[in-house]
Amino acid sequence: MIFSIDRDVLLNHLLIVQKGLPSKTPFPILNAIKLEVEEDYILFTSSNSDISIQVHLEDKSLNVLQTGKIALLGKYFIEIIRRVNANRVEIALVEDKLIVIKADRSEFKLHLVDIDDYPAIDFLDLDEPILMDSKMLKEIIKETNFATASSEKRPILTGVNFKYKDNGLYCVATDSYRLAQKNVKLRTHSKSFDIVIPNKSLDELTKIIDNLNDDIELYINPNKVLFKFSNILFQTRLLEGTYPDTERIIPSEYPVIIPFNKEELLGAVERVSLLSPRESSHNLNIIKLQLKTDQTVEISSTSNEIGDAMEEVIPTGDISGNGLKIAFSAKYLIDSLKSFNSTEVYISFAGEVRPFVIKGNLDQDLLHLILPVRID
Amino acid sequence: MIFSIDRDVLLNHLLIVQKGLPSKTPFPILNAIKLEVEEDYILFTSSNSDISIQVHLEDKSLNVLQTGKIALLGKYFIEIIRRVNANRVEIALVEDKLIVIKADRSEFKLHLVDIDDYPAIDFLDLDEPILMDSKMLKEIIKETNFATASSEKRPILTGVNFKYKDNGLYCVATDSYRLAQKNVKLRTHSKSFDIVIPNKSLDELTKIIDNLNDDIELYINPNKVLFKFSNILFQTRLLEGTYPDTERIIPSEYPVIIPFNKEELLGAVERVSLLSPRESSHNLNIIKLQLKTDQTVEISSTSNEIGDAMEEVIPTGDISGNGLKIAFSAKYLIDSLKSFNSTEVYISFAGEVRPFVIKGNLDQDLLHLILPVRID
Repeated sequence: MIFSIDRDVLLNHLLIVQKGLPSKTPFPILNAIKLEVEEDYILFTSSNSDISIQVHLEDKSLNVLQTGKIALLGKYFIEIIRRVNANRVEIALVEDKLIVIKADRSEFKLHLVDIDDYPAIDFLDLDEPILMDSKMLKEIIKETNFATASSEKRPILTGVNFKYKDNGLYCVATDSYRLAQKNVKLRTHSKSFDIVIPNKSLDELTKIIDNLNDDIELYINPNKVLFKFSNILFQTRLLEGTYPDTERIIPSEYPVIIPFNKEELLGAVERVSLLSPRESSHNLNIIKLQLKTDQTVEISSTSNEIGDAMEEVIPTGDISGNGLKIAFSAKYLIDSLKSFNSTEVYISFAGEVRPFVIKGNLDQDLLHLILPVRID
Repeated sequence: MIFSIDRDVLLNHLLIVQKGLPSKTPFPILNAIKLEVEEDYILFTSSNSDISIQVHLEDKSLNVLQTGKIALLGKYFIEIIRRVNANRVEIALVEDKLIVIKADRSEFKLHLVDIDDYPAIDFLDLDEPILMDSKMLKEIIKETNFATASSEKRPILTGVNFKYKDNGLYCVATDSYRLAQKNVKLRTHSKSFDIVIPNKSLDELTKIIDNLNDDIELYINPNKVLFKFSNILFQTRLLEGTYPDTERIIPSEYPVIIPFNKEELLGAVERVSLLSPRESSHNLNIIKLQLKTDQTVEISSTSNEIGDAMEEVIPTGDISGNGLKIAFSAKYLIDSLKSFNSTEVYISFAGEVRPFVIKGNLDQDLLHLILPVRID
């Protein structure tokens, strides 16, 4: 195995493969990256217990003198390529035991790990893709993933439910205190599916597709889902179990609906939450929202030790209903508002001890729901 | 106590006082900031076990309706002023128990702490100052403070020794494995002094004077030193004890002297140190430097588990002496090179098991010294 390549091209591809490396793992072999050097391309593979990534490098700067396959510790390999100060790097296998990396005046020798120990990664067959706009997928993740559970008490809640029916994709996340739900239309038909994707996998996927503007192809089987885009395969395991039916939680009638400027409301909630008492079991800070008779909204909090905070927010339009006093976690509302692209949001209240719902003028088919807490 | 003021002016002053608040303290009262509101100015005071800060706020936007003194929890007060979205804030004392902060549509009430509990901070008398360029003081701190000890094994080494003699200021820091020494001329005479300033105090001072271009006045007594600049008093305790005599550690003869481009050398050392073995007791990574017969320098490291790194560095001028092989901590050399402003550095070697010395073309009267480790 002997090849040379532009350093920047190699680094950019390695930084994607890196996202598939485990942060810690009981299987040391997974700290390795697999390189398969063919005559006119290189395949890089990485994997941890959740996700597997394969990057196909094909570039006019690649010059392969001898093909070959190796596995080597990803962390050091990537760090070396990141730090070398050269336009071009040469990489050669020596005696099947180590590789030599030459870049300008630097020379590194890295021991290999036995490629036969590297597990075979079973990427799904590339047939019958579901086509998806990458912008749409990024939006779905941004608008739902924050509402997944972080604790493993109910593992199924640590992922986002993706459900397909009649060309529509229904995405739901909940940690049982709040819920995010987004529905989108798809361009292609598919066989129906109902899967739960781990929130960490979606976080990593978001980082990789951040600058992508192409389409993404989805391939789904009952155990895993494969995202294919540009020269990258990104595959993640799915969570096992049945996702709870969340439809029945969403109230059907809302006596009070209040329109807000999103940034004004967010600023007020963030300021008031500075003095809100922490509920130690969930590390939540509880604030109160009161619709007053003069149709203004007062957001407030009280901490016995520190003091009080109060802020008046003027709704941006007509309010339906009147008279409301409700308490809830400032963090939940802040998380929700930050994930909206909308300039205006509408909060619909079903009652003082019933969940309330947030929608926005620019985030189509997106619904957030938050459970209030009882006021003493 | 009633006053109003531009929010930005108030915040900028508070961000300086904040640096005097303890991160944690056995004395809860020190979490408070003291405000003394006079007719045309406000004094803010904060203190932790090491440093005390007093900021004098005098500004045309300040409008005092009623003078007064209070103490209140600094963290919340500063966070509120940071977050409010208003051009102007009004602050008023109510019934001697709490203050009300009004800013645009926000209203905060903060409980006070008893001002009688706040300790009297004894700032030094402002007579016989030593005048110093703030740029020079920043440089001294940058070029020496990194070499102080971080462990408390020998407490005196956790500070920088400032010694005055004949209009000259001699500054030394060492953790007993490396040393930094800077000498400067002062503009004013002074009585002689020989003090040790804690490294953490110097870190905080650097942050505050970062954008300062004025002169700094120093006032010194045997227990503390006060820095006065613009509208700020910054006082720190001194370390007790006698600073060791470091002159005798510096070799007087150097058989080998090699000139380097600083950035090239730094890059090479950083890259080679990627594969250098960690010496677990000090978390140091040891690299080797070899002057070869062809007058090039080879920097290298070997890790049994991972591999080898080697880089050739071309000296930028004539080398005096020849034949050298020495091993040392990459971290020490990296720290040293980063603190130099110079483009060229000269490393003078006294022998393979003797300390070596780094000097630079632009850092006048600065000397760094590093102890090598024995090569097996």
